[in-house]
Amino acid sequence: KPLYIVAQVAGFVTVILTGIWMGHYRGGFAWSGDNQFNWHPLLMVMSLIYLYGNGILMYRVFRNERKKKLKWAHAIVMISAFFISVIGLKAVFDFHATKGIPDLYSLHSWMGLITVIMFLLQWVAGLVTFLFPGLASHLRSSFMPAHIFFGLFIFTMACATALLGITEKAIFSLKDDYKSKGAEATLLNWVGVLLIIFGVLVVYLAQN
Amino acid sequence: KPLYIVAQVAGFVTVILTGIWMGHYRGGFAWSGDNQFNWHPLLMVMSLIYLYGNGILMYRVFRNERKKKLKWAHAIVMISAFFISVIGLKAVFDFHATKGIPDLYSLHSWMGLITVIMFLLQWVAGLVTFLFPGLASHLRSSFMPAHIFFGLFIFTMACATALLGITEKAIFSLKDDYKSKGAEATLLNWVGVLLIIFGVLVVYLAQN
Ligand code: HEM
Ligand code: HEM
Ligand code: HEM
Ligand code: HEM
Ligand SMILES: O=C1O[C@@H]([C@@H](O)CO)C(O)=C1O
Repeated sequence: KPLYIVAQVAGFVTVILTGIWMGHYRGGFAWSGDNQFNWHPLLMVMSLIYLYGNGILMYRVFRNERKKKLKWAHAIVMISAFFISVIGLKAVFDFHATKGIPDLYSLHSWMGLITVIMFLLQWVAGLVTFLFPGLASHLRSSFMPAHIFFGLFIFTMACATALLGITEKAIFSLKDDYKSKGAEATLLNWVGVLLIIFGVLVVYLAQN
Repeated sequence: KPLYIVAQVAGFVTVILTGIWMGHYRGGFAWSGDNQFNWHPLLMVMSLIYLYGNGILMYRVFRNERKKKLKWAHAIVMISAFFISVIGLKAVFDFHATKGIPDLYSLHSWMGLITVIMFLLQWVAGLVTFLFPGLASHLRSSFMPAHIFFGLFIFTMACATALLGITEKAIFSLKDDYKSKGAEATLLNWVGVLLIIFGVLVVYLAQN
């Protein structure tokens, strides 16, 4: 219970600080031109970190709800996360197109694309197995460990991908100033630390 | 068993390709001057990825060995990994000192330092609990889940830290050429992908 509160605070502050980083230090948000990029970090952290983590934790929090209702809520949170992440990806692909920057050259982008694809596959597999049409009960329970393992693995991949994105953006925008430990550099390093705290706590709470 | 072989190949190739990246593309190894840095990635991947992962997998492979012998082997592999990682850190701190680059400014460096410190604490806790002096048997077994959780968490942190390091080094040395998808860029992205494959397989095999 106290760990759950720490997780919620860490996750929420991660989203807020990402918004401050992009909104205040990087020039704000727009759906065209140079600032279209800035939607990318914010939407990815909102979807594939914060919503994803909360979608996992739902089963731990609303233990007393009816199972059917919970399954629907879990599935809806996850597909919402997916759609928001697609908008976040569109932001960076559009930005690259307008700037003439090639796509999918970085380790971050490879990991990111693989993560989003695995996330979608996991969603379809979860739906088909547990909700609609739903497999026979013994098949459902034998699939559960795999569902949990992949769910947590893909979540860990999302966290690692976000940490690489933070590092890339830090170096691209601050250049050698990253080394001067200024306010923006310190802020963005803390976004990474809080994201890690949220990440471990989600994985820990899901397993206990 | 086939997954174990895939893990071993992925881990081994990760080390080799890191060596080729630093040895062939980045000018080779020296214990002073510009090339002292190049020891850092190689030694960190050897120690905190490859040896660490193999130290975890030992209990799965040598199931039939006497427990006492296995515990010693596990402890010795882990402390060797620690010492090699300290040499790897010395390489990059020395490099920063000779170049006048500030220490501990990046998210990578914060995560790296925290990871190595947690690794050392885990080693001491493991030794005291399981080997010398060793706690009462019921205390040992109640500590075991924590030992395994932290052991796998610190391993995941080491993997994520290495991925950030790869990204930093890619951007620092290739600059805008990273975007051209040349041989070195492709090589270093694959180091990251193989490292992730090794990482998941180690965590998966440790839990099954
Ligand atoms: C799980 C979350 C994330 C995913 C799945 C993801 C995915 C991606 C993908 C697929 C691209 C390639 C776009 C293209 O090639 O046109 C990209 C680019 C980029 N992302 Fe992310 N991203 C995530 C989070 C972040 C965060 C949090 C940041 C920064 C704080 C960030 C910074 C960047 C930057 C700077 C680029 C352009 C350089 C490059 O292509 O690597 N990303 N991202
Ligand atoms: C990308 C989408 C999804 C991801 C990443 C995901 C991930 C997870 C994770 C990590 C858990 C473990 C939670 C815990 O132990 O506290 C879980 C549990 C579960 N998920 Fe999903 N899930 C997804 C989609 C779905 C869908 C569409 C369904 C369909 C109903 C579903 C049904 C379940 C069920 C029944 C559980 C078991 C809860 C329990 O009894 O402990 N999941 N999911
Ligand atoms: C788990 C493995 C690793 C750990 C624990 C680690 C740790 C560290 C630490 C503590 C520093 C700071 C040195 C200073 O401030 O003087 C550093 C710097 C650096 N490391 Fe790593 N490292 C790891 C792996 C790697 C890898 C695999 C690469 C590259 C392929 C890499 C590239 C760099 C670079 C470029 C720097 C200098 C820039 C900076 O300070 O962030 N590291 N590393
Ligand atoms: C940094 C150092 C260490 C790390 C990262 C670490 C990590 C781990 C991990 C991840 C496991 C789970 C392996 C599996 O389930 O297959 C494990 C098991 C174990 N470790 Fe450690 N360990 C460390 C040091 C030690 C030390 C010093 C001891 C003292 C003997 C020790 C004793 C054990 C024992 C008894 C097991 C249980 C094996 C079993 O029965 O499954 N560890 N360790
Ligand atoms: O791929 C990218 O490179 C930088 C670029 O603007 C660098 O100068 C950036 O922010 C991207 O999205």
